[in-house]
Amino acid sequence: MTKNTKVNAAILIIGNEILSGRTQDTNTSTLASWLNSLGVKVSEVRIVPDIEKKIIDNLNFLRKDNNYVFTTGGIGPTHDDITAKSVAKTFGKKYQINQEAFKILENYYKPGEFNEGRQKMVWMPEDAKLILNPTSGAPGFSIDNVFCLPGVPSILKSMLGGLKNRIVGGKPILSHTISLRTVESEIANSLTMVQEKNKDVEIGSYPFFHAGKLGVSIVIRSESQSKINNCNDQILEFISQKKIDVVER
Amino acid sequence: MTKNTKVNAAILIIGNEILSGRTQDTNTSTLASWLNSLGVKVSEVRIVPDIEKKIIDNLNFLRKDNNYVFTTGGIGPTHDDITAKSVAKTFGKKYQINQEAFKILENYYKPGEFNEGRQKMVWMPEDAKLILNPTSGAPGFSIDNVFCLPGVPSILKSMLGGLKNRIVGGKPILSHTISLRTVESEIANSLTMVQEKNKDVEIGSYPFFHAGKLGVSIVIRSESQSKINNCNDQILEFISQKKIDVVER
Repeated sequence: MTKNTKVNAAILIIGNEILSGRTQDTNTSTLASWLNSLGVKVSEVRIVPDIEKKIIDNLNFLRKDNNYVFTTGGIGPTHDDITAKSVAKTFGKKYQINQEAFKILENYYKPGEFNEGRQKMVWMPEDAKLILNPTSGAPGFSIDNVFCLPGVPSILKSMLGGLKNRIVGGKPILSHTISLRTVESEIANSLTMVQEKNKDVEIGSYPFFHAGKLGVSIVIRSESQSKINNCNDQILEFISQKKIDVVER
Repeated sequence: MTKNTKVNAAILIIGNEILSGRTQDTNTSTLASWLNSLGVKVSEVRIVPDIEKKIIDNLNFLRKDNNYVFTTGGIGPTHDDITAKSVAKTFGKKYQINQEAFKILENYYKPGEFNEGRQKMVWMPEDAKLILNPTSGAPGFSIDNVFCLPGVPSILKSMLGGLKNRIVGGKPILSHTISLRTVESEIANSLTMVQEKNKDVEIGSYPFFHAGKLGVSIVIRSESQSKINNCNDQILEFISQKKIDVVER
């Protein structure tokens, strides 16, 4: 894969607790920011319940449509942790004890503490490669282009460092933000014109409320800094004509 | 639809800013909690970019598979707001000025302020029903079983009150949480046995770190309070045998 190739990824968040509204997902933004920094664009995110068929169907769609798929959640020791088994079925692989993971956890826990519950966490698809966990021992795993991470945000974050070298990204996606003291409708037409002149640059417009004041952030995203600079100049030009203030956020 | 019917909904979050990691989505948990209180279970969430084909394909799948679909984002005045047009195409409807919305915004803004940018927000699919916006004027809309809401969380929240009577839910989904000073692996086997004896109750297990201490929350969810009570009794029984402390969270 050369550095010019577009590289994309999907995220599959597994867990009833997100769908019930009980838990606020934060793993999407963690993974998306990290992937962006590696030159991988997140094409899509799906959040599904702890239901085997849902996990398999979605994985089968996403892994064909993306260079990488990251799953979060469902790799713990309890009955509702069905990710590893579902991934094994997705790939037609045996679901079995991973000997390397077994040794890691045998060493991690005090003698006698590596009980049956904890041993469930070393059951993985055959041929899974481990993703080491510096926080709480139990590793994640990858198979083919699917990377399975835990749902607990602090543990997930701690595992990304060790994963970095296994992801081959494209050119990093650069971005530049201009925050303005205005409302979207004031700049909508001018911004449309800039977008039309720069079709291969992604320009987004996001209203914000900050310290009791309205504003709009314009975000310019591209792999090319010079294209971003071009857009930036064109935007600053119409902003100056309209006498709109640029603000720090 | 009787009150016994299972009612489900999907959420389609539309916006590059979520996929880039720039913006943390909070609308999923807002909508999911609100829908739960109306007896509607969220079956699935998808987050897609501002790309017409992605919006249409996902809407077509989700609206057939669910009683309701809620979209968030993409109904503002700028070039990247393409939800209304995409929904019109999804239903094979004309994309046109909604006269009722036009009147609302004409009254909402001061004379001369209802400019071309703002007028874009009254373009909707033919036959769209408005969802009133008490915060910032511009209405959302529904067509068939698809409800389109804005992406700004505070505005979205303010629109739910007016929408309540248009959603026919099933029995409310009740939940009960037991928080324990333990780790998941200590209770995994016993909890599996309770789940197996109560197959129609949803039992989830979620580790937490709070004030420097580890714990696990067990969440029991069902439409039936007596089934929840049953599970609760069975869980408290094994907890007491294992001498595990119940904690307040």
